[in-house]
Amino acid sequence: MELLSNSRWNFQGKEDAKKASACTIRSYLNTLNENINKSDTRTVIPLSHGDPSGFPSFRTTKVSEDALVDALQSGKYNGYAPNSTTLQARRSIAEFLSRDYPYELSPYDVHVTAGAKQAIEVLITALAVPGANILLPRPGYPTYEALSTFSRIEFRYYDLLSEQDWEVDINGLEALANDRTVAMVVINPGNPCGNVYKHEHLKKIAEAAKRLGMLVISDEAYGHLVFGSNSFVPMGVFGEIVPILTIGSISKRWMVPGWRVGWIVMCDRNGILQKHGVVESIKSCLEISADPSTLTMGAITRILDETPEDFYSNTINLLRKAADICYTGLTETPCFIPYKPQGSMFLMAKLNMSLLEGIANDTEFCTKLAREESVIVLPGEALGLKNWVRVTFAVEISALEEGLGRIKAFCSRNTKQK
Amino acid sequence: MELLSNSRWNFQGKEDAKKASACTIRSYLNTLNENINKSDTRTVIPLSHGDPSGFPSFRTTKVSEDALVDALQSGKYNGYAPNSTTLQARRSIAEFLSRDYPYELSPYDVHVTAGAKQAIEVLITALAVPGANILLPRPGYPTYEALSTFSRIEFRYYDLLSEQDWEVDINGLEALANDRTVAMVVINPGNPCGNVYKHEHLKKIAEAAKRLGMLVISDEAYGHLVFGSNSFVPMGVFGEIVPILTIGSISKRWMVPGWRVGWIVMCDRNGILQKHGVVESIKSCLEISADPSTLTMGAITRILDETPEDFYSNTINLLRKAADICYTGLTETPCFIPYKPQGSMFLMAKLNMSLLEGIANDTEFCTKLAREESVIVLPGEALGLKNWVRVTFAVEISALEEGLGRIKAFCSRNTKQK
Repeated sequence: MELLSNSRWNFQGKEDAKKASACTIRSYLNTLNENINKSDTRTVIPLSHGDPSGFPSFRTTKVSEDALVDALQSGKYNGYAPNSTTLQARRSIAEFLSRDYPYELSPYDVHVTAGAKQAIEVLITALAVPGANILLPRPGYPTYEALSTFSRIEFRYYDLLSEQDWEVDINGLEALANDRTVAMVVINPGNPCGNVYKHEHLKKIAEAAKRLGMLVISDEAYGHLVFGSNSFVPMGVFGEIVPILTIGSISKRWMVPGWRVGWIVMCDRNGILQKHGVVESIKSCLEISADPSTLTMGAITRILDETPEDFYSNTINLLRKAADICYTGLTETPCFIPYKPQGSMFLMAKLNMSLLEGIANDTEFCTKLAREESVIVLPGEALGLKNWVRVTFAVEISALEEGLGRIKAFCSRNTKQK
Repeated sequence: MELLSNSRWNFQGKEDAKKASACTIRSYLNTLNENINKSDTRTVIPLSHGDPSGFPSFRTTKVSEDALVDALQSGKYNGYAPNSTTLQARRSIAEFLSRDYPYELSPYDVHVTAGAKQAIEVLITALAVPGANILLPRPGYPTYEALSTFSRIEFRYYDLLSEQDWEVDINGLEALANDRTVAMVVINPGNPCGNVYKHEHLKKIAEAAKRLGMLVISDEAYGHLVFGSNSFVPMGVFGEIVPILTIGSISKRWMVPGWRVGWIVMCDRNGILQKHGVVESIKSCLEISADPSTLTMGAITRILDETPEDFYSNTINLLRKAADICYTGLTETPCFIPYKPQGSMFLMAKLNMSLLEGIANDTEFCTKLAREESVIVLPGEALGLKNWVRVTFAVEISALEEGLGRIKAFCSRNTKQK
């Protein structure tokens, strides 16, 4: 009996989990980081993820830091959040976001989450009924794929049209959707593309979603981070046309992704989500998930209300400058055909494969670049777009210039000789 | 077309989510709180959940608060956690916990989570392969049921023996388990029972688990909060016998559940979890879940290393005193047959139903008590034990005394006249 039992264990790993995590951006970045040449004495330049918070120019406001210190030192926010604390946080977020809406959001339209990632997790989970499917953008943000895989909801890709400022291929939606299509995901400002949708285009998306009987998940993690000609329009302004579930957070605009505060906003002027049980599903999923930190909930009112306007405008000016430098730098390198970004922290650049010598695809490009130049950019493969790369320009300007210099040197070394 | 589409929506609520959240403690507490009489001018006495952090006597250490303030003001922990920050946190936790182990834990045995709840979520999810089942204690902690329901892993109850200091009914395990039983959950110090397992009993559990081919999830959220004759023994000391997955957090011992920092420790001296793919599953589940806050990861080393011994001993003395007052108070009330707690923040008390007039069960008892006395205790039904109640004694002593006074008044009013 002892001998037998020693060799028999009932548990095993879970294939779904392995499959889901394999497609995350982090798993690609881990691989790239393993390729860094340890004997290269130069600093690694991370042009790969949307987090400039560690660079001095992008440090968060003193207001945010003070708000959190005061919340902490008050001793009032060490415990599980009482309803009063949560409600105050929901009210503050509702009031803050309402500035951009033609109607007032209610605190009950808002749920606080542990960052946008938990918001995505909750929404995908809440909608994943057996047999359902969901439409995701290509290129997109792989967390949606990972969580859909994990929640066993089928996903189908709709295309973003690179020739049309990465607009949604609305005609293509009709062919993809069926009567089990519960939602489409729209990411605006665009990650990975750096585009910003116009009011009219967002309205067309809302109308198409309504025609197809699906709701819209509007990922606005990069909300308000726009510096081109299109201003930022929250999808929720179309909550009269179709139910919108908006995802947001303080991570990007306030430069504190490590603080883990985000939200879900239900913009649904006709009460359709309530009627169809989706509101209850979202609440249930939040109930069984880990709560956001009480401390940050205690600080959120001041963070939203007291951040000075010049912090926002400085950030925009800095992002615009960095985007210009990045776009110009890549334009001067024949290997790239970059898209000029208008928002977020990224641009997409197409690789001119015919010019490259000994590099078969985007993943090889990024791997070799990491190994030879200690510069990390993300292969488009990770985002559903082969032979493109996603480059973040949201880093200290000096680091960006250094990174672009190394990329140029790399490309000229690896370009075919005529 | 327009008319048709207006009435047809493809999305719907999710039954699993509803079912899972209905069994959480929070859903019971929400119902009880709705029964509070708004015109009662007395303070509500919450003897219902394990969070005394808001009471002055139980406030966390200045060391913890300073560590977090310094982490925040350093500006180094606003972003997504780099591997170096995570590794430092894992190392500190491993070193701190190793003090209680006969061997050294490695940083790679530890994963940081957003509180114990995320640790439970990750472990249940990682183990939930189709057809598997898991053994849960009765009475127990309903988050396990909620997450098992949600992850579609079957759960089966094993009994805790009230006559034997709530020890595990080890003989009963054999009848319950089959070759698809992947794990059993052990909660020690006991929530809800307030018991503390002896070294020998834990060893017997480990040996039974090994015989049955399952691993042990050891929930040590209340680790070290013991004040009776049994000292606290972490289950992981038996990691040589059977793989142990330990759950812990700073929430209870350091009185900061709102900070959301916990951990999973893999105690598996023979590398069985690795071999069977469970380590990879856990990593994958963590990868696609929301990260813990970087700030708290930045502070954890100092919190663990610098908290003075007298903070721990004061807490124990305070809990011991409160437990004695609570046990004595309930003993003096004929409606109750309380268990004398030795650890955690709770005790279980059996209701003497034959003495109660016009109260049919534990839920009615708790509802009426909330309505008439503004005192909240948790019905045993929520924990799988009908006609018992869970009472937390971890509140300010004055509040506890006030609560016990009201409970006595309530019981004498609702006791049958001879």
